[in-house]
Amino acid sequence: MVIEMKKDKASEIESGISYGPISARKCIMEMETYDPPLEGRKGKLRLDFNENTKGPSKKVMDAIASLSKEDISAYPEYGSFLKKLSGSMGIKTSQMILTNASDDGIRVVFDTYIDDGSQIVLPVPTFPMFEVYAKIRNAEVRKVLYQKDLSFPAKGVLASISKKTRIVVLVNPNNPTGTPIRMHDIIKIADKAMSARSIVLIDEAYVQYSNDSALGLLAKYNNLILLQTFSKAFGLAGLRLGIIISDEKNIEQVRKANSPYSVNVASVAAASAALDDPGYVKHFEDEVKDSKKLLEETLDSLGIRYYPSAANFLLVRFGAKSKSIQRSLNSKGILVRDRSSLPMLDGTLRIGIGTVQQMKRLIRELKKVL
Amino acid sequence: MVIEMKKDKASEIESGISYGPISARKCIMEMETYDPPLEGRKGKLRLDFNENTKGPSKKVMDAIASLSKEDISAYPEYGSFLKKLSGSMGIKTSQMILTNASDDGIRVVFDTYIDDGSQIVLPVPTFPMFEVYAKIRNAEVRKVLYQKDLSFPAKGVLASISKKTRIVVLVNPNNPTGTPIRMHDIIKIADKAMSARSIVLIDEAYVQYSNDSALGLLAKYNNLILLQTFSKAFGLAGLRLGIIISDEKNIEQVRKANSPYSVNVASVAAASAALDDPGYVKHFEDEVKDSKKLLEETLDSLGIRYYPSAANFLLVRFGAKSKSIQRSLNSKGILVRDRSSLPMLDGTLRIGIGTVQQMKRLIRELKKVL
Repeated sequence: MVIEMKKDKASEIESGISYGPISARKCIMEMETYDPPLEGRKGKLRLDFNENTKGPSKKVMDAIASLSKEDISAYPEYGSFLKKLSGSMGIKTSQMILTNASDDGIRVVFDTYIDDGSQIVLPVPTFPMFEVYAKIRNAEVRKVLYQKDLSFPAKGVLASISKKTRIVVLVNPNNPTGTPIRMHDIIKIADKAMSARSIVLIDEAYVQYSNDSALGLLAKYNNLILLQTFSKAFGLAGLRLGIIISDEKNIEQVRKANSPYSVNVASVAAASAALDDPGYVKHFEDEVKDSKKLLEETLDSLGIRYYPSAANFLLVRFGAKSKSIQRSLNSKGILVRDRSSLPMLDGTLRIGIGTVQQMKRLIRELKKVL
Repeated sequence: MVIEMKKDKASEIESGISYGPISARKCIMEMETYDPPLEGRKGKLRLDFNENTKGPSKKVMDAIASLSKEDISAYPEYGSFLKKLSGSMGIKTSQMILTNASDDGIRVVFDTYIDDGSQIVLPVPTFPMFEVYAKIRNAEVRKVLYQKDLSFPAKGVLASISKKTRIVVLVNPNNPTGTPIRMHDIIKIADKAMSARSIVLIDEAYVQYSNDSALGLLAKYNNLILLQTFSKAFGLAGLRLGIIISDEKNIEQVRKANSPYSVNVASVAAASAALDDPGYVKHFEDEVKDSKKLLEETLDSLGIRYYPSAANFLLVRFGAKSKSIQRSLNSKGILVRDRSSLPMLDGTLRIGIGTVQQMKRLIRELKKVL
């Protein structure tokens, strides 16, 4: 590559006097750098990111291994998978968009509804990416603290909804607290939001464990948008596949803000095979119930506080010892997530629920550590 | 799922009088719906999306088939791949971000630098997603028409850069015209943009065919951001993997607007295997040169106009017959892309270049059609 460059210009730039880096947007410059703590986890007991610790079924793995050269080199097609998926949920394909997992879903919904300075109502502590995308969109975030016992602050959320609100975010069950939101609270919020002309965005990443989706409300509330994912119970976190579900009039708008080919062909093949084999995922969900009971009983017997969870994890309050407990478990090859930096959660660890055998290993090490 | 719903509320909503759908942002409402024309392409000769028509190597396919249950169910890790990839390009890992293909790269760069009303300079006709994301970001797009012979409008671009400009978009070589941009024009534009405090975003999706990257300019111009992709020459369009490359100070900001896990594990495994086998991709690139020459000679002999292309496609001006030619080829199982709707491109088809054998088939059918 031959590069012709005028001498005076080159020296001017090399001097570096007049040309510092180009500034990013003010709201980006003010954000902190987020370093995902996700390296070197393979081979360890991963109880830190609420994944399915058993992994996907053999049918799913076969579907991935059966991808052809043409599947890999051609742009992905979604038509037949969308039919299968929407059919399995009892909705129309026009009510749904595939996304590059839920992060992408949040971003696309925000891009559709959030202008500079728009207001988002966000109960906290919760999944951090809502605040990250709110900052990127330069939105005003009206935070509502969970109650002292970490139960859902229904009254506080209702009181925060005003004509300024564009999106009310509900995470049900909530991450990292595990808190379920009762359907009659969701209905009250949807009502209030409807009269305020606000979207209610419900993240149902753990709905396969709570078995309590707002899907049935869509017919009555056209301001509801649901996010679901194949990353958690379905065991496909590595492949990145999420769904946005709503009234088709909303989906028509959200689709405009969505990249047309954001979802890869491996995730589509894997998810399609997973839908053909619902018993496999159900079996893991059932085992998680038993495992969770086992961990809860152990924590009860040890007098350690945890919070009622409708998801595949428990938020446990170890207090001042939490960080040393996390480090000790880590040294034994067991990963759990320190959530102390979030509001109200000082001294807490979030522990994912795996198989009964995996929980027995955790409990053994936990008892040694304590 | 039991849904408790107050009677009066339910009837109020069912009446539908006061509660229409929630409006999206004005700029979204005004956008047209984009329907990707990508269903039912498998098994056909796909010359419509500039894919690698031979597909990836056996090593790549083996890498995908070797993914473990843990790879699929755990969140993706990028560390070792980033080292390999940045090493192969002679840059630091801190100068690079992986993205969910180039669409995601465009979006993330716009999210970093474009505020409401910020100005983007965009030479047209070009890849439509720049305008799509500009609309989503509510940017002001200052379009600069390519010259009449579809050569790059260097003077027009230079004249359009002002203190209002935040990003100058260059697509090199350009899609769908195939037009290369000379490095000394890029340098002039980078200079002008630097003094205007503007980013120059260069989409190098077809750089493996043009062999003329602006990578070497990064050390001198910290306002350059490059986009590259594994979708084209590398044959991984189905898996979605792109790269953003720039000065590490820019990357530090862009990273804040990027989803931390936007790239899936199958694309990482496939791209890693492809990097280990550069000869395979190089061989296809060489064959494309021969194939392109074959098609050019045929078009010359038929007296049909096409434009000089540095990429793996030719923009061919068939005039009034273009749509019927496209339909006829389609009926023979050969897909080409009608680009008539873009400015200056009435009566054009974009024809992807495949293997020599594939081009012979195209030429045979094209001659019949004409």
